Amino acid sequence: MDIVIIGSGNVATHLAKALYAAKHSIRQIYSRNVDNAKVLADVVEAEPVCAVQQIDTGADLYFISVKDDVISELVSHMPDVNGIVVHTAGSVSMTVLSRFKNHGVFYPFQTFTKETEVDFSAIPVLVESNSESNTTTLLNTGKQLSNKVMKAGSEQRRDLHIAAVYACNFVNYMYHLADDVLKKSNLSFELLHPLILETATKVQKASPVKAQTGPAARKDYQVIEKHLETLKADAELHDVYNMLTNNIIGRVK
Amino acid sequence: MDIVIIGSGNVATHLAKALYAAKHSIRQIYSRNVDNAKVLADVVEAEPVCAVQQIDTGADLYFISVKDDVISELVSHMPDVNGIVVHTAGSVSMTVLSRFKNHGVFYPFQTFTKETEVDFSAIPVLVESNSESNTTTLLNTGKQLSNKVMKAGSEQRRDLHIAAVYACNFVNYMYHLADDVLKKSNLSFELLHPLILETATKVQKASPVKAQTGPAARKDYQVIEKHLETLKADAELHDVYNMLTNNIIGRVK
Repeated sequence: MDIVIIGSGNVATHLAKALYAAKHSIRQIYSRNVDNAKVLADVVEAEPVCAVQQIDTGADLYFISVKDDVISELVSHMPDVNGIVVHTAGSVSMTVLSRFKNHGVFYPFQTFTKETEVDFSAIPVLVESNSESNTTTLLNTGKQLSNKVMKAGSEQRRDLHIAAVYACNFVNYMYHLADDVLKKSNLSFELLHPLILETATKVQKASPVKAQTGPAARKDYQVIEKHLETLKADAELHDVYNMLTNNIIGRVK
Repeated sequence: MDIVIIGSGNVATHLAKALYAAKHSIRQIYSRNVDNAKVLADVVEAEPVCAVQQIDTGADLYFISVKDDVISELVSHMPDVNGIVVHTAGSVSMTVLSRFKNHGVFYPFQTFTKETEVDFSAIPVLVESNSESNTTTLLNTGKQLSNKVMKAGSEQRRDLHIAAVYACNFVNYMYHLADDVLKKSNLSFELLHPLILETATKVQKASPVKAQTGPAARKDYQVIEKHLETLKADAELHDVYNMLTNNIIGRVK
């Protein structure tokens, strides 16, 4: 298929590379910043464009992978096209694209950073569209990239996105706080590497309920008090520790 | 060496197995609950005992791996021994063992669950004791089990334990919350498996600061509002989302 990628960020980059590897023709990479467009366009043999008016109207499929809150404005400036226009956002309704005759959502469910290669085949892709035939096209495109493609409505997609905020974004923030604690004690973050991997590996088999350990799960109030006392000079570390510990204690049966 | 293990929980179990595999003689497993003592004792060819008075006074090394807040009372009832008595707790000072002539701390830094086998060789072990020769003994014992053995004082050990609460216990709690969200939408926790592994893998190379993604890191207020609106029926989910999101936004440069 002839494809246009609108965006040059993390998702756009990995998606463009995966589609290119699946032998699709990437016609254009659009980005407001032409340098960013060029970097990605070079990799996938596409034309870089930086004005919405330049977007090729003859492609089969358009992927909009830009910040959620600029999708709507960008869409209002896009030319009319016949191809299927999809966005890749977890928490944006499909209806934002309803001015296009053929439209849908193609949501790859993974955390992307530009520098890290990902195995797209293991990434769940959630698909939705305005017609059965468009859904079939999107499902088939998805299956060329991933082994885990499924239909999902906007609510399920939103909830999966919310779950991802906890399981990825907030988790990474916890790593960040742990690093803060270690820095104060001149200890290397590397000491945490095995623990972090084991914690993630455990829940690939067991449920998170079974995998819960630590002072709060043990209701070890003596240790908790000592930790809070140690952390009191840093309101952020202290308050997060306090809230999450109380919540975990509240769940212990 | 002749070793006595006091405790039969997660840490005691993995430590006893690793010491047994390193060809040490495990003389006894002590647990208040004789059935628990027997289960572990059978695996490492030891004698199960359930009264503190039965503890063998002739061993070379005693590992106390019980809940942090019962260490002190247990120690007060133990017979006098000549061997080195260590505890394995992250947040308990070494001084709780000062009634023993030879004492110290042997802290294996990993999350243990009984059912999951762990590769002890990758686990950092932090060692501290009351004399140089005891420290040497503990370091050498540690090196038989692990490739990452280091000396660390009580404050460093406590801080490493606090970091672990964030990087493991709180992280697992985030998985738990994500599972709660998915359950409401009839989605399987398995959808999160690749994301969870990738999130943990990323910070094996990059720093958590660089790895931060998501609506808060992008200051995507439209998505954040929508998520909070969706979560408002569940105070726990809502309040955690709100606090952590605000904290992440506060860190974005």
